[in-house]
Amino acid sequence: MMNRQWLIDGQPRGRAMRESDFKEQSIELAPLGADCARVKVEVLGFDPSMKGQMENIGYAAATSQGDVMGANGIGEVVESNDPGLKVGDKVTGRLCWQEYATVRARDVQTVPNDDLLTARLGPLGGTGLTAYFGLLRHGRPQPGDTLVVSGAAGATGSIVGQLGRLAGCRVIGIAGGEKKCRWLVDELQYNGAIDYKNELLKVRLKELCPGGVDVFFDNVGGAILNDVLARIALGARVVVCGGISRYEAEDLPAGPANYMNLVFQRATMAGFLVTDYASEFSRAHRRLEAWLRSGELQYREDVQEGFENIPATLLRLFSGKNFGKQLLRL
Amino acid sequence: MMNRQWLIDGQPRGRAMRESDFKEQSIELAPLGADCARVKVEVLGFDPSMKGQMENIGYAAATSQGDVMGANGIGEVVESNDPGLKVGDKVTGRLCWQEYATVRARDVQTVPNDDLLTARLGPLGGTGLTAYFGLLRHGRPQPGDTLVVSGAAGATGSIVGQLGRLAGCRVIGIAGGEKKCRWLVDELQYNGAIDYKNELLKVRLKELCPGGVDVFFDNVGGAILNDVLARIALGARVVVCGGISRYEAEDLPAGPANYMNLVFQRATMAGFLVTDYASEFSRAHRRLEAWLRSGELQYREDVQEGFENIPATLLRLFSGKNFGKQLLRL
Repeated sequence: MMNRQWLIDGQPRGRAMRESDFKEQSIELAPLGADCARVKVEVLGFDPSMKGQMENIGYAAATSQGDVMGANGIGEVVESNDPGLKVGDKVTGRLCWQEYATVRARDVQTVPNDDLLTARLGPLGGTGLTAYFGLLRHGRPQPGDTLVVSGAAGATGSIVGQLGRLAGCRVIGIAGGEKKCRWLVDELQYNGAIDYKNELLKVRLKELCPGGVDVFFDNVGGAILNDVLARIALGARVVVCGGISRYEAEDLPAGPANYMNLVFQRATMAGFLVTDYASEFSRAHRRLEAWLRSGELQYREDVQEGFENIPATLLRLFSGKNFGKQLLRL
Repeated sequence: MMNRQWLIDGQPRGRAMRESDFKEQSIELAPLGADCARVKVEVLGFDPSMKGQMENIGYAAATSQGDVMGANGIGEVVESNDPGLKVGDKVTGRLCWQEYATVRARDVQTVPNDDLLTARLGPLGGTGLTAYFGLLRHGRPQPGDTLVVSGAAGATGSIVGQLGRLAGCRVIGIAGGEKKCRWLVDELQYNGAIDYKNELLKVRLKELCPGGVDVFFDNVGGAILNDVLARIALGARVVVCGGISRYEAEDLPAGPANYMNLVFQRATMAGFLVTDYASEFSRAHRRLEAWLRSGELQYREDVQEGFENIPATLLRLFSGKNFGKQLLRL
């Protein structure tokens, strides 16, 4: 039986990603080893940090040219020599860009085949946990606080804003395009949304945050971070989660010129990685699941299709084309 | 009797300060009111934040053209209708750029006329308290940490480094010029010093901080902040105290392009203002005084002379000419 895979074939450091950074190969599957199981990959999840992973910077394990591109996914066990996994089990884990993954039980997590199955790549996966620990531990939201989220309609941002609402904050989202902004206000009950592509961010921030910004959760960086820094309130917490505006720049973009406002407002800007909270994942996971089931947390998925479209789907993240968690069904 | 004063006569926002931002005037002293005392100003203290005060940004009370320039000083009571102050008392407080200040007891603090008299404008004044609370509360130094200080030979920086030494840190100072660097190592017992004017900062940081920088106390901003951000250790604390490299720029300089390293290193960048800790000043003051008396804390003063040289003395801070706390004796 053949296994199709996408291999890393380019180094996108300091430039935009291209589909040609990946090349397809088709190889014969080796016979299944003892203690191993074969998983048919059904859905893949996409995340901006996958570019950082290819660049071998910061938060991701080093990768090499010729590696199968790493990614989380959901699949079904189709063959098993591992007593911990049986045929028909749904599993999630680092299944990578391929049709079949060979795993052991310890590499994956068995998950129920319910209506939250794909949520395990989004709000119940690393995305949701990133929102949870980033906002609650570093943003430390308090009732009455004004929380601003950039990339607010994205997979992480949309959970952050809703968790802020649950914590009693006024929530203002920054997103690109009227459709995303309407969704934030109409469906997710944000108190306001700013369409940075069609509105003047500085002006709208002033209108919507007359008392300043107590918590800013930043997924974007660049001009958005800088403009929000100009509006932070006394004792504000700026949580740096991502900088999608920077990921495709040729040269390292300038940092936020207004950072000295941290001094005047006695504010804090902090980075974090969700992996630091591994010991608390199960509790966070239980809470997120309960909120998803009760409808207090909503989420969107942007589902593309087809093995051949995997690289193009990753590129959607950097042009803001995705609306909700970017997934692809093989 | 006449009183000579320096008035604000320019707005240095977005440009370098000039001596012509001030103009001298001589006015007849009014008869001393009831409950007031006349203080002959003897020594004035200078601080980079005085430019911010004139620009009416952030951390300082608003000022207007024509105001007597605000500044802390030390003086002697020469006439008094205030039962709380008697002739001959030495006082410290906001005496401003003038020969005589008219005050009430509540405006000033009576201080002993001892060998730490002028230290009350430096290590026993706002400067020392800024170092104390900035480093200890926001830098949270731990034994074994590598602490890097910029503006290390300055009034604040030199206290920060020594407090770091008392807290068990390896201390590396960044300063301009060989003489300052030698002082840091030979007199203040820093573990190392980098002369950013004559050495390659990036290279030296790598040599002197092989395990990364746990605490960075920044008085300078600009390229220095950016280069240190590239070397921060896991869980680092970056304390933003000042940005002297930025104060005279025409346009708002770019921020630190490497700020995303806060994410990879799970680090924090925080601003603070010393005034937030007013309730704890007396304890900090007692500790600083004890360390100064025992010789565990050392300090330098750069003493200029003459009423006519007051504006030029302020300008010394922005060209790095001062070596130690900038004072002027009238």
